[in-house]
Amino acid sequence: MSHFLPVDLAHASRLINHGPTVLVTSAHGERRNIMAAAWSMPVEFTPPRVAVVIDKQTFTRELASASGVFGLCVPGAALMDLTYAVGSVSGRDGDKFARFGIEAARGPVLGVPVLEAGCAAWLECRLIPERHAEDAYDTCFAEVVSAAADTRIFANGHWSVREDNATLHTLHHLGAGNFVVAGSMRQAHAPA
Amino acid sequence: MSHFLPVDLAHASRLINHGPTVLVTSAHGERRNIMAAAWSMPVEFTPPRVAVVIDKQTFTRELASASGVFGLCVPGAALMDLTYAVGSVSGRDGDKFARFGIEAARGPVLGVPVLEAGCAAWLECRLIPERHAEDAYDTCFAEVVSAAADTRIFANGHWSVREDNATLHTLHHLGAGNFVVAGSMRQAHAPA
Repeated sequence: MSHFLPVDLAHASRLINHGPTVLVTSAHGERRNIMAAAWSMPVEFTPPRVAVVIDKQTFTRELASASGVFGLCVPGAALMDLTYAVGSVSGRDGDKFARFGIEAARGPVLGVPVLEAGCAAWLECRLIPERHAEDAYDTCFAEVVSAAADTRIFANGHWSVREDNATLHTLHHLGAGNFVVAGSMRQAHAPA
Repeated sequence: MSHFLPVDLAHASRLINHGPTVLVTSAHGERRNIMAAAWSMPVEFTPPRVAVVIDKQTFTRELASASGVFGLCVPGAALMDLTYAVGSVSGRDGDKFARFGIEAARGPVLGVPVLEAGCAAWLECRLIPERHAEDAYDTCFAEVVSAAADTRIFANGHWSVREDNATLHTLHHLGAGNFVVAGSMRQAHAPA
């Protein structure tokens, strides 16, 4: 049973505000792919826009460029090994969804593959063609056109990181398969 | 006593690989500033390059554009209130270093303000002029020209996140002063 519900677009950028490592999904024709990306960030709240670094050598870049769309899924801590795995092998060597037993639905607006089991959230993104940034920095800008989150950790526009939802705590890649899990939520005091 | 040592430029991008909220420092002439930024990411390892969103309305953007340089400091968990504070008020209303009692040294290459006490790392960055990305997405690309880290949490090119260095664990802003602290380090298993 999925606990996912749609997220208002006004809150979509909050899903990656804190720098989680994400899974980038893509599809074009009969081909599809999924890779891990540590380098992504929002660039605007309204309209929700993001930037993500997708190396021009990757199969994901080929599919995203061809289709003009991609998905971002935010894996929970329980998907750490899978996140590392899909970041370690190329989809050109065989379909990673099949190889790793990943079940993906299709996003409601763009039809990109989206994962729910084990993920905290997903976003459907439409590429904003920016040839120079793509060429010079492998940085792809995109607009988020739909999003959803597991209501056990993100609801009504707010994250709620608690001990009882530890499997959904976000992953942050330090390098070489070492991750840190963002598990302790704290409220800062406003300045006097 | 500072525990900071220089970080090889080949490892500099690792300092923000996992999406921490950073402090952006800037200076031009007699004026200086510090603000918080949740939206930053590396875009390249070698040479080390980063992208950070700095709203065009901010005093930081004015100083960074005028000087062509800025600093990124990675605050530890103990600096949560300060991080929120410098992200909540404008340096146009008075020097935030003085107001909040922040001690800053000058970076060795660019002379930008860098913080060590309470921070895990800092990076000196030279803006790469990219007018379109700056205008359209408030996204500033820059090259890292020097970096240093507190050896209690980052040494020899690697993070070591442990219980005994909890005050240096990185902060990740969820929104509205809510942060999550990245405190649990785990090693993923490689795919079979």
